Amino acid sequence: MATETGSRVEAALDAVLRRAETQPSPPTLAAAMRHAVFPGGGRVRPRLLLAVAGACGDPRPALSDAAAAAIELLHCASLVHDDMPCFDDAATRRGRPSVHAAFGAPLALLTGDALIVAAFETLARAAPADPQTAAALSLIVARAVGAPGGIVAGQAWESEPQIDVAAYHRAKTGALFVAASTGGAVAAGRDPGPWRVIGEKLGEAYQVADDLADALGCEADLGKPAGQDAAHARPNAVRSLGVGGAVARLEGLVREAVASIPPCPGAGALADLVMLQARRLAPKDLVRSVA
Amino acid sequence: MATETGSRVEAALDAVLRRAETQPSPPTLAAAMRHAVFPGGGRVRPRLLLAVAGACGDPRPALSDAAAAAIELLHCASLVHDDMPCFDDAATRRGRPSVHAAFGAPLALLTGDALIVAAFETLARAAPADPQTAAALSLIVARAVGAPGGIVAGQAWESEPQIDVAAYHRAKTGALFVAASTGGAVAAGRDPGPWRVIGEKLGEAYQVADDLADALGCEADLGKPAGQDAAHARPNAVRSLGVGGAVARLEGLVREAVASIPPCPGAGALADLVMLQARRLAPKDLVRSVA
Repeated sequence: MATETGSRVEAALDAVLRRAETQPSPPTLAAAMRHAVFPGGGRVRPRLLLAVAGACGDPRPALSDAAAAAIELLHCASLVHDDMPCFDDAATRRGRPSVHAAFGAPLALLTGDALIVAAFETLARAAPADPQTAAALSLIVARAVGAPGGIVAGQAWESEPQIDVAAYHRAKTGALFVAASTGGAVAAGRDPGPWRVIGEKLGEAYQVADDLADALGCEADLGKPAGQDAAHARPNAVRSLGVGGAVARLEGLVREAVASIPPCPGAGALADLVMLQARRLAPKDLVRSVA
Repeated sequence: MATETGSRVEAALDAVLRRAETQPSPPTLAAAMRHAVFPGGGRVRPRLLLAVAGACGDPRPALSDAAAAAIELLHCASLVHDDMPCFDDAATRRGRPSVHAAFGAPLALLTGDALIVAAFETLARAAPADPQTAAALSLIVARAVGAPGGIVAGQAWESEPQIDVAAYHRAKTGALFVAASTGGAVAAGRDPGPWRVIGEKLGEAYQVADDLADALGCEADLGKPAGQDAAHARPNAVRSLGVGGAVARLEGLVREAVASIPPCPGAGALADLVMLQARRLAPKDLVRSVA
């Protein structure tokens, strides 16, 4: 299942980019958009979405594919904008030049914008399969990205004089994971409510893993400069819990995520997949202690 | 009708911002979003959308209101990003500090992103009125903003070594006007095809008016620094046609726009409104020769 969901994600993203690359697209914008999306990172969020949809039977794959692509496009857009000089000023991403390093800041700004628009366009294009569900997915995704509680709001907390740490993490990392888990359920025609917790727990686990990689200087795992949290005085789980405490927290969150999976036809396979993915989350140096 | 559409636009935008301002929104982001949207400029695009919907009977105002708000939010987002240091580096907009001047570049970047997301969220929220039409509107709006032919693509042409001037103008200014005219028709349940031309012509007229204001240094009309086209070596109708030629072109485009109005219950009132708006388009110093 893991390999199949992976290739579905790549195919759905490639279809979106091929549309963006048609005439009359300015060629450098098209190239920058592709650079931002391919080759990808772990595709963790869209794979979670497809795994949840699959566990629920996935009766309309056109909708789950569109929602998975939308979530990954929005994640890529946030990375492009976060890497820009006015934020992290990161020259590398996924082991390659970041979009602004390769194409300049103006095109990086436009690339992020175009990817955000492409996400919602992708959902609108899937509407013929079921317009009401497509609209529900569009709303889930929009809430996970915009104000007041999405990743843009999460990033904006970094500019506030007083930071609400819980709201910050929930918005910056958690929101898109919750959109992935609840979006997968909605795409499969299920009630999203019981699927919130797995998204919340995996989002938090992912944040702790990222904090570990950043604090331990695992640039190979990050594919981007490490030590950014300390440099930007951002909250980091290793600073508050220590390395051992952060690893224990990561393990606990993954266990809670698995325990929260609602009854559904593919619950067992989904639990296996989450455990498999969780092993990849931890920095390579720590993988034995987490696995 | 003009006053009524104006107050509908303001009310629809205010409702969007009030949602974005609720807990747990970071307060500075909420303030920056409001700064970007209020007080507005001419609200030319959403008023065109509501005027076209009105001319077609406007049977579902929840949809036309949502589409009008979405189009204005996307226009405001493009202004916020265009004003940023990596583009025009404009310190003023609508006679006040631009968003990056007032709130800094990081928040300006996030504000534009949040406004783009809010536009699509607004359309998704209107879906209960008619999910299929809401999806059609979302697609119209996305095409007008993203790649390959929307305003983001238009802006991206400025970074290309060789500029396709026709594609540049069609994308940068025309696309959102076409979305306004065709979106108004779709929101009212009509075929969008016959409503493309009025959007194209008014978009081009608006571009010529903007070129005139920029070339003639009418900062009061622009509400932003003039002379930007020459400074950034961008195409400008005054450079290619001269002042008299540009004014004649503006008049001709407005006449063609009016002549293109398809048969519909409110065709006469719409023609009057377009002529009235056109007088406001031209720089104040030239208004007598155009009126």
